[in-house]
Amino acid sequence: MHNKYCPRCGAAAMRACVPEGDNRNRAVCAECSYIDYRNPRIVAGCIAAWEDRVLLCLRAIEPRAGAWTLPAGFMENDESVSEAAQRETLEEANAHVELQGLSSVLSVPYANQVHLMFRARLFAPSCSPGPESRAVRLFQEQQVPWEELAFSSVSQALKFYFADRSAGRFQLHVGDILKHGSDWVLREHFPVSP
Amino acid sequence: MHNKYCPRCGAAAMRACVPEGDNRNRAVCAECSYIDYRNPRIVAGCIAAWEDRVLLCLRAIEPRAGAWTLPAGFMENDESVSEAAQRETLEEANAHVELQGLSSVLSVPYANQVHLMFRARLFAPSCSPGPESRAVRLFQEQQVPWEELAFSSVSQALKFYFADRSAGRFQLHVGDILKHGSDWVLREHFPVSP
Repeated sequence: MHNKYCPRCGAAAMRACVPEGDNRNRAVCAECSYIDYRNPRIVAGCIAAWEDRVLLCLRAIEPRAGAWTLPAGFMENDESVSEAAQRETLEEANAHVELQGLSSVLSVPYANQVHLMFRARLFAPSCSPGPESRAVRLFQEQQVPWEELAFSSVSQALKFYFADRSAGRFQLHVGDILKHGSDWVLREHFPVSP
Repeated sequence: MHNKYCPRCGAAAMRACVPEGDNRNRAVCAECSYIDYRNPRIVAGCIAAWEDRVLLCLRAIEPRAGAWTLPAGFMENDESVSEAAQRETLEEANAHVELQGLSSVLSVPYANQVHLMFRARLFAPSCSPGPESRAVRLFQEQQVPWEELAFSSVSQALKFYFADRSAGRFQLHVGDILKHGSDWVLREHFPVSP
């Protein structure tokens, strides 16, 4: 669903149609031909570790208030992905991190999002809840509240991270998270399984 | 600059201000409080190879009509990054590819974009210009028209690709392309140089 009014001319004339030279439906103004393009948004965040523990945040806001998540959020204009991941970790957990590599790129087509998660190292084992967090805590792998994680992408990103750590080799994981009834399924692209 | 009219209520009341609980300027409607969030867009594409040659497209459209580029374009809603890269290669060069790995993630903050380029293998050495291309051609490394490439991100993605190919080892490259006067400079994050 698109908005009713044209943001450029103000007419109540926004219609779904395929613009000339295009091949998909857009919200187009029938008065002034303005096209309101909508594209996926990037969520950038960190798997921030101190020794064998990783930082999780208890969400204070919807969606999924009361569930645990990695520090992550929407990338903003005028910043890079790396900056966004570090900023979100600072905002949500008051934690400064050094990025160590990109761990996963997970497309979530049903939410029109792409989640980029970095491995990161905390500069100190200190963290505290920012305005969007109710609590923040460092978890060992066996302490992770898997059933209380906020999003499928968070769960999958953590699985990749711990599997790589156990294997003693960190890799980039590229995949898509797809709806499967009321559940979800991972379509993995890389690394290609042997 | 933001649009004048509110897309939700139609009032000519969009103003730049920091919404409550936020920490940056947004376009906000003074009548109905609608917030028009703007976020970076993803450009997905391929470095598509046939033997030792890579596929480039001569742009038929602005910006940079008449310059060479990798097949790439804006990711759409309802698709994954991998699908977007393959779709763009098909649309711009009528070429089917198999993705082989993610080669680079380049943030371009001054354009509010993030460019994700995949290594890919053409299923056949056949390609032809789509509607947005004037010509398409397979280039050996020494044939690449470096001075006639359309975008800094394309130039940088190709440099990473050929350097990795020479080294016999493909890696993921994460960096930011920053404006530097009328030129640009790369801020490289990963891999970390030894």
